[in-house]
Amino acid sequence: MYSYKEKYGEYLSLFNARLEKFYADTRCEPRVLDESIKYSLKSGGKRFRPVLMLASAELLGVEAGVIEDYALALELIHTYSLIHDDLPEMDNDDYRRGKPSNHKVYGAGNAVLAGDGLLNTAYYLLFERCADGKQHVDAAKFMCGCAGVTGMIAGQSADLYCAESGERDADMLDFIVKNKTGRLISAAAAVPAILSGGKYFLELKQFGEDLGRLFQLTDDVLDEEGKFEELGKTAGKDREENKLTYVTFYGVEQCRVFADILLSKCLGLLDGIDGDTSFLRDMVNFVRYREG
Amino acid sequence: MYSYKEKYGEYLSLFNARLEKFYADTRCEPRVLDESIKYSLKSGGKRFRPVLMLASAELLGVEAGVIEDYALALELIHTYSLIHDDLPEMDNDDYRRGKPSNHKVYGAGNAVLAGDGLLNTAYYLLFERCADGKQHVDAAKFMCGCAGVTGMIAGQSADLYCAESGERDADMLDFIVKNKTGRLISAAAAVPAILSGGKYFLELKQFGEDLGRLFQLTDDVLDEEGKFEELGKTAGKDREENKLTYVTFYGVEQCRVFADILLSKCLGLLDGIDGDTSFLRDMVNFVRYREG
Repeated sequence: MYSYKEKYGEYLSLFNARLEKFYADTRCEPRVLDESIKYSLKSGGKRFRPVLMLASAELLGVEAGVIEDYALALELIHTYSLIHDDLPEMDNDDYRRGKPSNHKVYGAGNAVLAGDGLLNTAYYLLFERCADGKQHVDAAKFMCGCAGVTGMIAGQSADLYCAESGERDADMLDFIVKNKTGRLISAAAAVPAILSGGKYFLELKQFGEDLGRLFQLTDDVLDEEGKFEELGKTAGKDREENKLTYVTFYGVEQCRVFADILLSKCLGLLDGIDGDTSFLRDMVNFVRYREG
Repeated sequence: MYSYKEKYGEYLSLFNARLEKFYADTRCEPRVLDESIKYSLKSGGKRFRPVLMLASAELLGVEAGVIEDYALALELIHTYSLIHDDLPEMDNDDYRRGKPSNHKVYGAGNAVLAGDGLLNTAYYLLFERCADGKQHVDAAKFMCGCAGVTGMIAGQSADLYCAESGERDADMLDFIVKNKTGRLISAAAAVPAILSGGKYFLELKQFGEDLGRLFQLTDDVLDEEGKFEELGKTAGKDREENKLTYVTFYGVEQCRVFADILLSKCLGLLDGIDGDTSFLRDMVNFVRYREG
């Protein structure tokens, strides 16, 4: 009998096993570099992106042994972006997932290098896979594009620009969310499609972007209303700092309407895909109705 | 009639043409991301690493049209590392190549992202080349290893550790120089060997590491003795900040002895390589006797 929670646990175990292997294989010098990298990786939360990638891979028949390196690389990239985002010169967040952020433990200099190191290591894993043929090269390139200056970094830069300039603009907000949050989640959904020959690539790419928007919407609402214990970071911070978010721009009520529209859009995209999409459907619902 | 200066100029023109194409092809949003990335790239100095790579490629018969993307990626990686190195939480350098450093112009947050963006873009270029076959995958992976947590980043981390802890140790100094400076220069020399089938790979890898050591030695001496105008950065800073360098550890006189040993070692390695190595020989001599 299928259970979302159990299935999530299975994907998570699979990912955690790959992560444990990574910890064992990777010993960098000096020790502070090794420790600071592993500190942030180990305080990882729900592993949403890798789990989504593993689920999308299973749906499309891509083997776990093939996709797990991409899932790991994606989580390394996500973790690097959080470390750099939390830096004093960026979001200046003292907590991440309920624990002191990387720079609070190791200092900002080491945190910059831990982030750089994670990004580099992610790409090293992908270069290793590139030896397996063209589809792997395409998948790696797509992931790199999602993370880079036409993807996540562009979103981070626009976010910082709005925070510094005070500019408020619906298009800019959409640009930030699509790139900063949407692109890596889109990569999680769509990379398996590249590896399995391209079928459903466009559907899953769009699905990931919309799921990313939904994820950010509910995150913004949680920031406004959530408790610190559930969120693992400081609540109400966005409003206090006058950040440009869905909530500070549209208000909570409008956000709920948007969330329902995005929920329908995501489920509609899954309707167009053959195979058992129940886990992905439940994932969308979870993101819509999550409380932490 | 061969002239080192003219030949250097030829390689430089070739590289600058590739760089101009990159500027034209690359337009990131928001504008501050585009500008901050190009600001640091455009204030590039002698393009030592790309020129070395082009020269090594010509020696081994690797076409300029093939190697130029690697040379560009290498310069992007080098430039990212300088931006992050100059940050207040790292070396805290206000000047780089005679101009205000990236964070002095754009702020530390944007400088972090400019660095991240350059690193990502370098790997995007390399993933594009990976489609051309196994030797390209090997070359890209080697470059990534030189830049990452078992290469340059390890050196940066050890450098920061020594600055913060005050630890002084000959092995640590060698580790820092080998990784922070040596590995990218080694990549410049050895990537053409991978692309041309592997011959002379070990020789050129070692040549690059030793040339990197020599480069760092003369850099340290220039920091101690050089004038700001020649160096383009603040002179005497290493000593003032009690940084662990060849000069602060061994003193200038001993450094001159080491420099001569490294000079011989580099020239000896070139003796073992067939073909016209005159440019590489002159490059070694230039690094040994440079004044800026």
